Amino acid sequence: MDIVKGFPATSQDNYQLNVTTIIKHAARSFGRQEIVSRRLDGSMFKYTYADAHERMKRLANGLRSIGVQVGDRVGVLAWNSHENYEIYFGLPGLGAVMLLLNLRLTPQDLAYVIDHSGASFIIVDETLLPIAHAVAPLCKSLKGFVIITLPGKKLADVKTNLKNAYSYEDLIAEASADFEWPHMDETSAYAACYTTGTTGKPKGIYYSHRDVYLHSCAIGNNAEISLADTYCQIVPMFHALGWGLSQAATMVGARLVFPGMYTLDRLEGLSKLIVDEKVTVSAGAPAIFMPLLEYIRGLDEKLDLGGARLLSGASEPPVAMMKGFWELTGAEVIHAYGATETTPLVTTNRLMPWLVGELTKDQQWELKKKQGFTVVGLDLKVVNALDAEIAHDGKTPGEILIRGPWITAKYHDAPGTESQFTKDGYWRSGDMGTIDEHGYLKITDRVKDVIKSGGEWISSVDMENEIISFPAVLEAAVVGIPHPKWEERPLALVVLREGEKEGVTADDIRNHLANTFAKWQLPDEVVFVNEIPKTSVGKLNKKEIRAQYKELYSK
Amino acid sequence: MDIVKGFPATSQDNYQLNVTTIIKHAARSFGRQEIVSRRLDGSMFKYTYADAHERMKRLANGLRSIGVQVGDRVGVLAWNSHENYEIYFGLPGLGAVMLLLNLRLTPQDLAYVIDHSGASFIIVDETLLPIAHAVAPLCKSLKGFVIITLPGKKLADVKTNLKNAYSYEDLIAEASADFEWPHMDETSAYAACYTTGTTGKPKGIYYSHRDVYLHSCAIGNNAEISLADTYCQIVPMFHALGWGLSQAATMVGARLVFPGMYTLDRLEGLSKLIVDEKVTVSAGAPAIFMPLLEYIRGLDEKLDLGGARLLSGASEPPVAMMKGFWELTGAEVIHAYGATETTPLVTTNRLMPWLVGELTKDQQWELKKKQGFTVVGLDLKVVNALDAEIAHDGKTPGEILIRGPWITAKYHDAPGTESQFTKDGYWRSGDMGTIDEHGYLKITDRVKDVIKSGGEWISSVDMENEIISFPAVLEAAVVGIPHPKWEERPLALVVLREGEKEGVTADDIRNHLANTFAKWQLPDEVVFVNEIPKTSVGKLNKKEIRAQYKELYSK
Repeated sequence: MDIVKGFPATSQDNYQLNVTTIIKHAARSFGRQEIVSRRLDGSMFKYTYADAHERMKRLANGLRSIGVQVGDRVGVLAWNSHENYEIYFGLPGLGAVMLLLNLRLTPQDLAYVIDHSGASFIIVDETLLPIAHAVAPLCKSLKGFVIITLPGKKLADVKTNLKNAYSYEDLIAEASADFEWPHMDETSAYAACYTTGTTGKPKGIYYSHRDVYLHSCAIGNNAEISLADTYCQIVPMFHALGWGLSQAATMVGARLVFPGMYTLDRLEGLSKLIVDEKVTVSAGAPAIFMPLLEYIRGLDEKLDLGGARLLSGASEPPVAMMKGFWELTGAEVIHAYGATETTPLVTTNRLMPWLVGELTKDQQWELKKKQGFTVVGLDLKVVNALDAEIAHDGKTPGEILIRGPWITAKYHDAPGTESQFTKDGYWRSGDMGTIDEHGYLKITDRVKDVIKSGGEWISSVDMENEIISFPAVLEAAVVGIPHPKWEERPLALVVLREGEKEGVTADDIRNHLANTFAKWQLPDEVVFVNEIPKTSVGKLNKKEIRAQYKELYSK
Repeated sequence: MDIVKGFPATSQDNYQLNVTTIIKHAARSFGRQEIVSRRLDGSMFKYTYADAHERMKRLANGLRSIGVQVGDRVGVLAWNSHENYEIYFGLPGLGAVMLLLNLRLTPQDLAYVIDHSGASFIIVDETLLPIAHAVAPLCKSLKGFVIITLPGKKLADVKTNLKNAYSYEDLIAEASADFEWPHMDETSAYAACYTTGTTGKPKGIYYSHRDVYLHSCAIGNNAEISLADTYCQIVPMFHALGWGLSQAATMVGARLVFPGMYTLDRLEGLSKLIVDEKVTVSAGAPAIFMPLLEYIRGLDEKLDLGGARLLSGASEPPVAMMKGFWELTGAEVIHAYGATETTPLVTTNRLMPWLVGELTKDQQWELKKKQGFTVVGLDLKVVNALDAEIAHDGKTPGEILIRGPWITAKYHDAPGTESQFTKDGYWRSGDMGTIDEHGYLKITDRVKDVIKSGGEWISSVDMENEIISFPAVLEAAVVGIPHPKWEERPLALVVLREGEKEGVTADDIRNHLANTFAKWQLPDEVVFVNEIPKTSVGKLNKKEIRAQYKELYSK
């Protein structure tokens, strides 16, 4: 990306974009706005932006007093509490990096992340101490712990063998509220989050203050969040910045609700909180929104959430769920797309006004399932295997490449990962998608599940599904095998049902596939096997299949 | 402002914030959104963001073909038309600086601005050619002109003696639509606007791309503008970026309406357009909104603008006007404050939800007249004459200081203006104001109209009004006179009514003032005169009074 210098401006361009600007603003302008938190013992707690800001400044002083300095990395193992919200501003505000620790990782992976970042301290909820206990002996860089004890509990009464453990509440109580947030260079890291891909070690993304500030503007603008809203933090705050709406909500002074601890199999408390507090903006996965809808359906009184916006990510939102919210409460479910590498907002799906008259209601609902259009500030393109942009026909798939101020430019200290970025600064998302004539993106596959052939893509998942729809077939796996001319060509492994093992030929499978695939996409070889290699968790082991057949097309 | 460097981030922090990002986005995601323009011959014109973007690229190529290069300054003398909107993106998009020319300046001042900026070209509406004709002979730097001819008119049919004149439409028609917007260094100037203070030469503010991008996010967020809105460009586009809402509206893909030419004494066409196009967001001065309200009042059918937001600036919005819009149409008038030096948004006034139950309806309306609270991203403080922050009691006035990414850090090439900025980067606005306990700013005076005494301020305007309320007084002027100990002390010049010239003493005036002023604020001297010096337009000539009495307190 060549940068061109123009005529000099007189603007205050050295004023750094800092995340603390957001909370200073909220405390100044919206000091009396309410923050509601369900504590880890189930009790409710309420305070204000002004109160929270004071505790953040005390926290910053308290952390400094135990040795946390500018540039230090400090891990956080915590639920969606008001304390975590305080950490979101107070910890990076003093110049340290907030390392988000996913409490669902194995102790080995957590220890890898902690040591890779060089974290010196971990702030941990008392209820999550078992994780800290498992991780601590595996880590080299840790110097101490700060424990968020259960309400009213003293540190002395907490059962732990952790050395150098401090109480979060004691640190805050003993520290001064007099703290001037430093003006951090905006390219300094505000937080770090490690991806947990299926292969290789976790990879670190270190979000700059500039990144998070601009992302907050963008997601706030897309969620149309305002002072009149009540925002509930559903997305775990240990995922990519909890998806960033808590900062955006703070920017505009919305009322905040923190649900504390909840798990997918214990959602009733969360649902009740959302209804009781009349939440108007939130973000989460369909896995949360589906049971929430059922809860609302079971209420005696009709719930009016007219104008509310629920950003739904992680997987495609079912139409029944979107329709359900709309018809039952007036809330709009908005499909959004992103990744840890993208802070994460990349696309949102809103219905363009000019499509209202052109599409039937059913078509509009189908359209709402797509990932949507790219938010302002980012470049997004979908490319074929030769990195040329694909047609915007809603059919041709390609890999999604993204760049912009809140997209990562590299992985932290991860040699060998350079190929995941293009020369002109795009991040290769690994997601395959199409763009339709209206500009809506739809994710179709992961790149690792597609086959590159002659500069084009063939979806292995689609082909597997199509083969399985052949009555005699029990199971199928499709992989790309290196080919001297076409780069890769598809190979299909097929397990036939008992009693059907005679009489089915490779051409039968190919003829069946020809109904939906182009001739050049059909597998050169269809191999009938008794069993397909599987991984320890029962998934198709494509790595092993590719290794086993790697010379099939080059002999 | 000390900047602290933290741990390095992985974010793409070198991705530059550019204004062209906004229009590229709109063309990509909202390509079919409508733009409505009333042309200078009164006819209506409609096209889309995609159409506009194509014409902007042609314009960039066309301007390049006549010699406009990266870094060049190009003046614009135009009404609020779709062509001006094209210039707003196409001209700075190619890397040049868009110099906004206020068509109400004298030819001498315009020539000063043009030569001071070193502008090489001027783009001018055909209807504004008389101004160009008056200015051209006075300018040294100009190389040529681009004329936006009336619809359907050829350049050959335009009466002008300008040399090197090109047709805007011909440039667009002949140029290629193939143009890749350069990635401008975000600190490069996007546009320039000169202030027209009452004293001294106009001073230039050169807005960077970064400034305008961040300002667009901020004003969009404060006006809560969205895809569902229709925005009308009422503020003259030759004022500070037309107040920046056209860029913010483009960010979110709102429908745009350009009213073309209108003047304060010919507002009916504008009013009709706003009503016909169902505008939901706009910005302007009470001088525009008052007659608009009258127009709406006279309509046969009730106009529903429920949810619409009208940003009102330049002067205090009368309660009757705000109430009128609310009761008649459901539109909310939002008081906003700023200056050319601030891009311009500094404060907006929204009612905090927690005040609804605490204030009576009348108190709420009174509160809405204030300038409001500072928008996120800016630092604002109100200080006494020693630069210490004043109490937030709604009474104590001080000077308003502002800093942030869209505040100017200096004036372009203007030696001697450095004192208008503090060491830590604040711009001295020259406005005096108070902040109340809820955080609402209210402008009370201009600094030049207050007297600095012992580190405190005394409002000369308030004191003059109070003196005039004394029955025997015809006229009064209060100025600050240098004082060896107190820096300044007030002097009052008083003209008594005919027949009252006997028997009124300085103590009578001081006793009267003591009802509303503190003892230390009272004028040391009250001088009875037959006449007060006036300027050529009839205002009190305080400069002359100060000169005449300059040694009164130092003798």
